[in-house]
Amino acid sequence: MSTDESQSERSWTHESNQLLRFGRHPELELQLAEYDLESSIAHVKMLGETKILDRETTKAMLDGLAQIKRELLEGKAYLKAEHVDIHSALEARLAELIGDLSLNLRIAKSSNDQIATDVRLWLRERVLDIFAELLELRLELTKLAERDLEIVMPGYTHMQPAMPILLSHWWLANETRFRRDFSRLTDFYRRFNVLPLGAGALAGTSQPIDRTLVAQYLNFDDVIENSLYAVSDRDFMVEFGSVASLVGLHISQIGADLLLWATQEFRFVRLRKAFVFRSQSMPQKSNPVVLEILRSRPSVIFGRLVELVAALKAVPMGYCHDLQDSLPALMDVVDTLKFSLELTRAVLQSVDVNAERMKEIAVSDLTNAAAAVDYLVNGGMPPDQASKIVEQLVNYCTQRHKSLADLELNEWQQFCPAFDTDIYQHVTMEESVGARSSFGGTSLEQVMAGIVRAKEMLELDQSNLPMLAKERIKIRQLQNI
Amino acid sequence: MSTDESQSERSWTHESNQLLRFGRHPELELQLAEYDLESSIAHVKMLGETKILDRETTKAMLDGLAQIKRELLEGKAYLKAEHVDIHSALEARLAELIGDLSLNLRIAKSSNDQIATDVRLWLRERVLDIFAELLELRLELTKLAERDLEIVMPGYTHMQPAMPILLSHWWLANETRFRRDFSRLTDFYRRFNVLPLGAGALAGTSQPIDRTLVAQYLNFDDVIENSLYAVSDRDFMVEFGSVASLVGLHISQIGADLLLWATQEFRFVRLRKAFVFRSQSMPQKSNPVVLEILRSRPSVIFGRLVELVAALKAVPMGYCHDLQDSLPALMDVVDTLKFSLELTRAVLQSVDVNAERMKEIAVSDLTNAAAAVDYLVNGGMPPDQASKIVEQLVNYCTQRHKSLADLELNEWQQFCPAFDTDIYQHVTMEESVGARSSFGGTSLEQVMAGIVRAKEMLELDQSNLPMLAKERIKIRQLQNI
Amino acid sequence: MSTDESQSERSWTHESNQLLRFGRHPELELQLAEYDLESSIAHVKMLGETKILDRETTKAMLDGLAQIKRELLEGKAYLKAEHVDIHSALEARLAELIGDLSLNLRIAKSSNDQIATDVRLWLRERVLDIFAELLELRLELTKLAERDLEIVMPGYTHMQPAMPILLSHWWLANETRFRRDFSRLTDFYRRFNVLPLGAGALAGTSQPIDRTLVAQYLNFDDVIENSLYAVSDRDFMVEFGSVASLVGLHISQIGADLLLWATQEFRFVRLRKAFVFRSQSMPQKSNPVVLEILRSRPSVIFGRLVELVAALKAVPMGYCHDLQDSLPALMDVVDTLKFSLELTRAVLQSVDVNAERMKEIAVSDLTNAAAAVDYLVNGGMPPDQASKIVEQLVNYCTQRHKSLADLELNEWQQFCPAFDTDIYQHVTMEESVGARSSFGGTSLEQVMAGIVRAKEMLELDQSNLPMLAKERIKIRQLQNI
Amino acid sequence: MSTDESQSERSWTHESNQLLRFGRHPELELQLAEYDLESSIAHVKMLGETKILDRETTKAMLDGLAQIKRELLEGKAYLKAEHVDIHSALEARLAELIGDLSLNLRIAKSSNDQIATDVRLWLRERVLDIFAELLELRLELTKLAERDLEIVMPGYTHMQPAMPILLSHWWLANETRFRRDFSRLTDFYRRFNVLPLGAGALAGTSQPIDRTLVAQYLNFDDVIENSLYAVSDRDFMVEFGSVASLVGLHISQIGADLLLWATQEFRFVRLRKAFVFRSQSMPQKSNPVVLEILRSRPSVIFGRLVELVAALKAVPMGYCHDLQDSLPALMDVVDTLKFSLELTRAVLQSVDVNAERMKEIAVSDLTNAAAAVDYLVNGGMPPDQASKIVEQLVNYCTQRHKSLADLELNEWQQFCPAFDTDIYQHVTMEESVGARSSFGGTSLEQVMAGIVRAKEMLELDQSNLPMLAKERIKIRQLQNI
Repeated sequence: MSTDESQSERSWTHESNQLLRFGRHPELELQLAEYDLESSIAHVKMLGETKILDRETTKAMLDGLAQIKRELLEGKAYLKAEHVDIHSALEARLAELIGDLSLNLRIAKSSNDQIATDVRLWLRERVLDIFAELLELRLELTKLAERDLEIVMPGYTHMQPAMPILLSHWWLANETRFRRDFSRLTDFYRRFNVLPLGAGALAGTSQPIDRTLVAQYLNFDDVIENSLYAVSDRDFMVEFGSVASLVGLHISQIGADLLLWATQEFRFVRLRKAFVFRSQSMPQKSNPVVLEILRSRPSVIFGRLVELVAALKAVPMGYCHDLQDSLPALMDVVDTLKFSLELTRAVLQSVDVNAERMKEIAVSDLTNAAAAVDYLVNGGMPPDQASKIVEQLVNYCTQRHKSLADLELNEWQQFCPAFDTDIYQHVTMEESVGARSSFGGTSLEQVMAGIVRAKEMLELDQSNLPMLAKERIKIRQLQNI
Repeated sequence: MSTDESQSERSWTHESNQLLRFGRHPELELQLAEYDLESSIAHVKMLGETKILDRETTKAMLDGLAQIKRELLEGKAYLKAEHVDIHSALEARLAELIGDLSLNLRIAKSSNDQIATDVRLWLRERVLDIFAELLELRLELTKLAERDLEIVMPGYTHMQPAMPILLSHWWLANETRFRRDFSRLTDFYRRFNVLPLGAGALAGTSQPIDRTLVAQYLNFDDVIENSLYAVSDRDFMVEFGSVASLVGLHISQIGADLLLWATQEFRFVRLRKAFVFRSQSMPQKSNPVVLEILRSRPSVIFGRLVELVAALKAVPMGYCHDLQDSLPALMDVVDTLKFSLELTRAVLQSVDVNAERMKEIAVSDLTNAAAAVDYLVNGGMPPDQASKIVEQLVNYCTQRHKSLADLELNEWQQFCPAFDTDIYQHVTMEESVGARSSFGGTSLEQVMAGIVRAKEMLELDQSNLPMLAKERIKIRQLQNI
Repeated sequence: MSTDESQSERSWTHESNQLLRFGRHPELELQLAEYDLESSIAHVKMLGETKILDRETTKAMLDGLAQIKRELLEGKAYLKAEHVDIHSALEARLAELIGDLSLNLRIAKSSNDQIATDVRLWLRERVLDIFAELLELRLELTKLAERDLEIVMPGYTHMQPAMPILLSHWWLANETRFRRDFSRLTDFYRRFNVLPLGAGALAGTSQPIDRTLVAQYLNFDDVIENSLYAVSDRDFMVEFGSVASLVGLHISQIGADLLLWATQEFRFVRLRKAFVFRSQSMPQKSNPVVLEILRSRPSVIFGRLVELVAALKAVPMGYCHDLQDSLPALMDVVDTLKFSLELTRAVLQSVDVNAERMKEIAVSDLTNAAAAVDYLVNGGMPPDQASKIVEQLVNYCTQRHKSLADLELNEWQQFCPAFDTDIYQHVTMEESVGARSSFGGTSLEQVMAGIVRAKEMLELDQSNLPMLAKERIKIRQLQNI
Repeated sequence: MSTDESQSERSWTHESNQLLRFGRHPELELQLAEYDLESSIAHVKMLGETKILDRETTKAMLDGLAQIKRELLEGKAYLKAEHVDIHSALEARLAELIGDLSLNLRIAKSSNDQIATDVRLWLRERVLDIFAELLELRLELTKLAERDLEIVMPGYTHMQPAMPILLSHWWLANETRFRRDFSRLTDFYRRFNVLPLGAGALAGTSQPIDRTLVAQYLNFDDVIENSLYAVSDRDFMVEFGSVASLVGLHISQIGADLLLWATQEFRFVRLRKAFVFRSQSMPQKSNPVVLEILRSRPSVIFGRLVELVAALKAVPMGYCHDLQDSLPALMDVVDTLKFSLELTRAVLQSVDVNAERMKEIAVSDLTNAAAAVDYLVNGGMPPDQASKIVEQLVNYCTQRHKSLADLELNEWQQFCPAFDTDIYQHVTMEESVGARSSFGGTSLEQVMAGIVRAKEMLELDQSNLPMLAKERIKIRQLQNI
């Protein structure tokens, strides 16, 4: 190789380092540090337990790692530009502390199974919080359902008022969405909380390691068997992104509904001051920016899911860098999901409902016409015929600016003699709501039963939580005090 | 309204019908016909059972529906341009057969809960097949793993040969992917196989219906409680699209690997004639088009998933047409998934492996250098130092066009006196493979154990299948005979 | 090869054909037939002109192709299961007609440059229509702007009424969106309308062909030079999908706005009967389903764009089947775009505006408070201070259920002595609108000027249309008569 | 309101601030600071020029803004948690410096048109660099094409060697891709570089502003007319994301090709040391991680494009926060694109080509069989027949491990008497390449002509660059010295 070429190689080196620095996200990689340390400690303990390392070496290494743990807690970062990844940084610091003994950290381990383990530990920590936040949001929605049992609102189809329903019924419908998201997250977690470490670079190792032991130390429920699969798998990112996308959809939907309800034209809800942005140039306005954030922010999750899928498309089996290149996407999904869940709960607590206005619309739009149809059908008339009669009644009312309840009996009977005085019990809005008492319907008794079941499910889900999630919830509760 | 305006209304009517015809997909809607009929029959049976309809009416209606069922089986389509949806078409035909009695079909039911039920029944039918196809693919991969226990291939990381592994190990890694997809599909199915019918337009009904009975008739595992949620929910489309996307990713990945292996440069595999496309202008070529299809076709699923998510973003709670507008996307996901799974299995059966070429690359690239490193580490040397020594050895070999196994003992010892005659047992490829006997590693015993477990899981999954899926598999088996 | 194996090969053949049939979309491929024929004719004419084929052969071939053209026009399809693509089908039919002479069709051409040409011709035909439809939609919006110059509506930010504006201003804002889409389509077309034919399989040909001549015959503006690029390029699909996505976004946005305006709570617009769907069970309802279609349907385009991008990610240079596998996605984008554009225009023609209700909201929400702020600022007060004063005024009004115009002068002056009798000229809604006369503002004069410019741009764009698009528009106009 | 409630309001305030802090990205918003300042200065200058502000006020404000500019250059950040956006932060600092005079900054301007302007200025600055980087990459590819005119490589279709081509031909095909991306960016820029400022909140302003003057100060090519459109438009984000996605596709494709070529099985290229990652545990390996980054990183852009589209779907006309919520996505697209372009160029400079190996494959795979077909066709035989004859020849060679050039004349003539001694001139690889001399083909003369045209286009594009881009390139060149 000529001198010229080797010079230019040096300049490439320089340039490439710069480029790599730009291409990497050190602040994100740093978040892996504590998990890299945690899994390294578990690995060394296992190497000691299985006599692959002797007692003294093991002790020296664990002491060194404990020292780094203290440093990390004190806020010392140990990732530098020259480290190819966070684990190299850990190795370098360990070498400073205990010298060549540190090299034993590489026994029966490669950077491929190491990084796969670190990412899982990082994600698991956040998923535990998301379990808690979903439960809290469900609890909040259940409480709102309990609070608003007396508020009647128009139920909509095609954005047109259809039938009066209880506002509690609407809260419960939203609760059901997040309840099922919780179920998805639980299924995800069961598949996800398994250990890749011990897979080596891709083929396993010739050392007599005990992978089950490491799994126990790190609270994994099982070991990923096939070593090639273990280092190649990033499906959990896509699966988590999918679960997060559904939660995100539900948040965008509840945000959009509340945004609609907060318009001056609907006036169903009003955000309390803390969540309202005043306009500088237009003093009469208060802008529900937080609701717009609920509507739009989940798009981050949708896009990142696409990135994860696109990045994994057609990549070869066996470790490749593409698998790791999506770390920022995963982290963005997690951060956006946590933020959106917290904001949703805070916003829900801060929405004032205008019960009168809801009732006004529920009545004025003749939504109980459906009850009149039911009256005729229950009396034996075919639905189609009943529907046509009531359509004429509705037109009659509309032209005279009356509601059905205002009509005289003879007016009713002009359209159909089958109407009798008991019709007045049906076309009140309360009756229209109360009558819908089929299982899961909007009648008070059904909604109250729905609330009871929602609470039972909440308790059941809480008691069936993964052990780590239960512990996390206890810690969260302590911190809130 | 002036005559002019009403004329123009008539022309709009005309135009809008045309537009709607373009906007709809009658051939897709028609696929719902049998499910619409099936759920209508169940609904009427329940109305009879609960005495909401009298016995005679019930019988007349069931007879009429039975007649339509026969017609459908004979291939008569009953969807016309004037019908707003497939259920209107069914109603119209029923009215032709039994007159006004047909109107009772609308009792305690709306088009909102009806269409939600139809779509679920349609999808369920296909999911049952996908269960079967995933099982068959897993079985195929397990058989291939059993077949190829003696074939050694280079294991790759970063698309560079890393260590020799058994080809069976690679088959099992792929089987693991689909095994976990199967687990995802099972979880999906559990959440999915629940009945919306009985939710009415959105609020339930005042009729004393028995939703559980309908669920039993239609083989749903449960009833969706909250009526508002029941008509609004299309999350199952997104969830199914997500599961399908992961299966699609795995198919694109296996396709890409085989495409690489089928290049003239790799020459690891060859497709049998039936799957090869000859080039007209270039007689020496045979084009592995089917592998390119495996690589690219799943993109349909990825894109359709995005469509489903985008369509549901920020839509209001309560039924809206947006929910139904994604039917073609759902159907495309299903068709693409089924096609891709079938093609994958057929292709795998038709791949001839070039074991010699695989072995040649596994050896020639000195991939067992890692075994030499292990030799030194097992002898007590720190991995880093061992690695440096072997790197020098590798350079030495490369310059002399030798493999490690060709070296004399004194050549070994030039680089490190710790090498002894037993090194020759380690640097053969067979030894390199065999040594990796940690749990899930590539050694013969581990791979054989992996095959046993794969089969056990397959049997377990088969015995835990939903009842309907078991029945479907029996029917498929009968049809294959 | 053993008999067994060759038998199983036969069964694979059978199976693979079936699979391929499922995997292909014959009804879509058939759409390419006329373009395949068109480009074949152009190719043969060039081969004759350049003496590569003698006169007699050329004539025989052109006669045969003319015969097939007649057959196609008569509706005879010539794609069968055994044909690998539409061009093979054409070749087979030509062979039936003129025997071995048909083989000359392969001279200086491969299926790679052939299919690339066919797809471009197919797409170009549709793009010509989309030019026309965008122009028609822009014209419609301009007409609506001219019609509604006297209607005042509330302008919204954050979905809250901000300031009164002219409805015409809103129509023009929408027109501007589609005007810019038109500009994007024009840029796309310029890059797109270039000829790949003559690139051969990937390397060009040794025949002395004249590619410019073929381009002229087929009305391409230029030839794609680099032969490798020519057969590999499908970027035009992605670029078209991107342009279509923006049009789709604009349609979803206008649909969502109208859907909001059609609610009972806004009551700004009403769809005429032809576009309304009646609800069976709820006689008082009329459902704006077409607006929901405008809102949701463009999601098809967004998803298909993702499919196109995902399919092309990381594919190798040189023709591969992945390029062709996205044909259904391209066709779906085109169909959805055309349908959505037509529906949008039809819907806009059928929207009745409730000018009174718009004005009511524009006034009642004190949106002209901003005009009061302007009054003070124009009088020399800093905006912030003016804003605070008017905020107090607004609160005062709100508590008393008054509008600003109702206040006595002394009430004004309680808050700020700078208010004088001329304030009443400013806080009328008309004044508030009229005052915003900066360039592009909502004052009548500015909006009228905007309409003039919109029309000028429309004419300019029409006169600068590609020649083929002008011809297409003439044909469309003749057909409408 | 009870004390309790107002207390809880206070705690919400606290909580909401925290939440907003999480939800915002201060480090990204800070990037807008200099553009916010720049547009504010332009706005004030115009207010002075049009006498809306008197001379003294104007001067005081410009002095204050100049002071802040100096502070910014010194690295002082002025965004704090209490500021709702970057412009509020600027206002606050200006108030500290010049007191109430600062409030004049709000005259004839709102935060809606302000932020729209800031984002455009931010993006424009980066687009100018991307122009330069695309030009540099094209120049690099042109140089490589010039360098490698003597290297023959196998051209591939379906990843199978098809015909020998010049490596320069391949470089040029890649150059063509980026050349067209440049053309797309130019079209984008023309539509994009227009000024929203002066649109006010959405309706324009009553102040006699001169928008054209501001456009001149800020180097915009035009003013966005319609004020409602001006504040609502974020289409430029989607359009830029689409252009970036195509560049990203091309980078992923070139990365994937090089990754394939860098395999041990292809051995076509080798990365120089600076770009290679050594494996710790496997000393024989060098991992082309940078190529994997080229393949995978553009997925960020694809996903972010989806986010942008999803966020804008169905949002109402008029400013809403959703428009601003996508700022991080836009910034990520830009950063990823710039990084990927720089890395691509650096990598291309560091790839060593193995010309011998390329030639070996180009020959050994009998890719010049196509030349033998051409020989027969040029002699008058129908292509199909010629193809069949050569197919038999190829089988004959394959069985004997010969290449076509090795055959004796009588062996040729066994298959077809039309072969004569001049066949040897055609079946050399050089001849096979050289013969493809149709326009844009792979013959040396055509490729050399292609290079000339590529350079001409490069110069033309450079001379037609937007003025600001030319200035930027000069600055870049000075900085490199």
